[in-house]
Amino acid sequence: MTMIPPSLLPEGLSDRLPPQAEASARLARRVLDTVAAHGYERVMPPLAEFEDTLTQRLKSMRAQDLVRVVDPVSQRSLAFRPDMTAQVGRIAATRLAAAPRPLRLSYAGPVIRQKASQLRPEREKLQLGAELIGSDGTAAAVEIVNIAIEALQAAGVTGITIDFTLPDLIDALAAGPLPLGPQAIEAVRAGLDAKDAGALVAISPAAAAYLPLIEATGPFHAAMERLEALSAQLGGAIDSRIAGLRAIAKPIGWDITLTLDPTERHGFEFQNWFGFSIFAEGFIGEIGRGGSYAIARADGADEPAMGFSLYPDPLIDAGFGGESPKRLFLPLGHDADRAATLRAEGWHTVAALSGDEDGAAQRCSHWLDGAEPRAY
Amino acid sequence: MTMIPPSLLPEGLSDRLPPQAEASARLARRVLDTVAAHGYERVMPPLAEFEDTLTQRLKSMRAQDLVRVVDPVSQRSLAFRPDMTAQVGRIAATRLAAAPRPLRLSYAGPVIRQKASQLRPEREKLQLGAELIGSDGTAAAVEIVNIAIEALQAAGVTGITIDFTLPDLIDALAAGPLPLGPQAIEAVRAGLDAKDAGALVAISPAAAAYLPLIEATGPFHAAMERLEALSAQLGGAIDSRIAGLRAIAKPIGWDITLTLDPTERHGFEFQNWFGFSIFAEGFIGEIGRGGSYAIARADGADEPAMGFSLYPDPLIDAGFGGESPKRLFLPLGHDADRAATLRAEGWHTVAALSGDEDGAAQRCSHWLDGAEPRAY
Repeated sequence: MTMIPPSLLPEGLSDRLPPQAEASARLARRVLDTVAAHGYERVMPPLAEFEDTLTQRLKSMRAQDLVRVVDPVSQRSLAFRPDMTAQVGRIAATRLAAAPRPLRLSYAGPVIRQKASQLRPEREKLQLGAELIGSDGTAAAVEIVNIAIEALQAAGVTGITIDFTLPDLIDALAAGPLPLGPQAIEAVRAGLDAKDAGALVAISPAAAAYLPLIEATGPFHAAMERLEALSAQLGGAIDSRIAGLRAIAKPIGWDITLTLDPTERHGFEFQNWFGFSIFAEGFIGEIGRGGSYAIARADGADEPAMGFSLYPDPLIDAGFGGESPKRLFLPLGHDADRAATLRAEGWHTVAALSGDEDGAAQRCSHWLDGAEPRAY
Repeated sequence: MTMIPPSLLPEGLSDRLPPQAEASARLARRVLDTVAAHGYERVMPPLAEFEDTLTQRLKSMRAQDLVRVVDPVSQRSLAFRPDMTAQVGRIAATRLAAAPRPLRLSYAGPVIRQKASQLRPEREKLQLGAELIGSDGTAAAVEIVNIAIEALQAAGVTGITIDFTLPDLIDALAAGPLPLGPQAIEAVRAGLDAKDAGALVAISPAAAAYLPLIEATGPFHAAMERLEALSAQLGGAIDSRIAGLRAIAKPIGWDITLTLDPTERHGFEFQNWFGFSIFAEGFIGEIGRGGSYAIARADGADEPAMGFSLYPDPLIDAGFGGESPKRLFLPLGHDADRAATLRAEGWHTVAALSGDEDGAAQRCSHWLDGAEPRAY
């Protein structure tokens, strides 16, 4: 092998080679086919937009996270998309503002950011997903969660775990039955993030009232019972959220592991009442995420929405989906019609250009001997 | 309809909406499936690279055409790819340097440039194609041209015209049987570009010797006869190129219009002996292009290659491929198993979320009445 200088490509930007590139394309296709079959129609937003248009809809995105350039045409700042859901929201709120609701849209493409996180060195990644615009109710959540699962299963992903969360739960409790001031809210969040009971107790008696949420974490049914007990103590304050989660969980098959982490908030800066993360056995970190959110319309009103995004690169990096097609070597003077028939039957053919090529070296398992593929 | 401010998106960057986005994805799939069936394996290079790495392999690309940013990690200049063939060449020359030849690679993805041309306002476009690395002979050209045609036909494109060119013909003639100095070469090129016989005659008697090339333009067989007559006058100086073109043309079906423009050079800055442009009836401008070229290897040697790229956006913009799937409305309480079966049969289903949705407004042609789709 030729030595490749380590600086050939910038940190966080890389090539996908065969067979991983094909596996990535195949996974994306199966996900997109699944969401299309459920009536989600494809949109393709551009790689870059005006920075202000893009960041309006990306509240959690810091300017320094964006790849930005000055547009020589408009002299305005452009930003490459770090995420596609904001673009889909823009499309729904503007060019498709008059389309009937619920509006079901799907998307797939590369997203890029200026600096990678420590956990994930990639600056460019593939994002694909589906957004249901016009509803954020339980029925919408049931549809979105189940399509996400069906799409991953269609792509061959097994060992799926779905982790439910209630992104605005703390805000709702703090504004209602378990009052907290703004400063205390942040301290409580930090304590809940760390699952640190001692920290909560140390803040104040009001903060200590959030202790049961630490226990309401883990395998879904046991955690839900603890959440229900808390709601009962609070006069049924979060019964409607609990009923929503129960309804969403109900149709999910037994082959899926369900967990609950009601105070998880990282990656859910936009979501309101419902959020979920998707994990797959053997892969570190989430491979997808979704939930309910609001889209700001041109008329100033908010429109409810529900959606999911998948980030399948870690699956592909780990060697997922590397199927090998059957490769057939076609010697010089082969029967071209027969070769076309075999391609239509699923063979990938590799035609000789000269008389001195070795089909086996071209990773062909067979060669065309007259009309029939023959194994090497 | 909501009024959309005209400045919502930067000039040259646009959204693709349904059904054009789906048509674009479908066309790309069919092209990629065709090239995969011929043994071309997918590679996915990153959206951006170090500017110097990228421009080394893009001789004709000016720095001001590139979208560039300073990489905060390396402090080096990054450029977004304006073209993917240079990236595929880099991969072939480095990480796949040791892979057996011929090496067949395919690719698809967005490319972006800083300023659009006057002819094409888009700054971002889809590029897809196939590169055969390790050979630039006639057999390689036959394979590449015919796969390009097969891929477009598989995608449903009709009325295809292939225009052959000989990118380095003038250089070869000027260095051999029809000598010209460097300055005269440029003047002759300009005269041939304009098909301006008077201009050639006005340059010099040596330049006037290039006049027959103006006539050797147009429908393939008539133009080839004129090129053959010129070669005969020159003692057979370009007989080998003529034989190459004849061999490439031979397997091309009668449904394809073949033309020759032996001195066409725009868009062929990299190609050496052979180039071709692809046009489709009813669309202005080319939708693809290819030919023979050389890849600079890490050891300094050149490796021969042959390939084609397609730029199908103009086809999609013109409404090509807008097939409508059969959409089926699923009322509340529908038979979920039956719906899954119908999806597997090709229906796209749209499930009710509440009792008050109108399937017809959701552009469904049918609704599920018990077990059977019923037309609205």
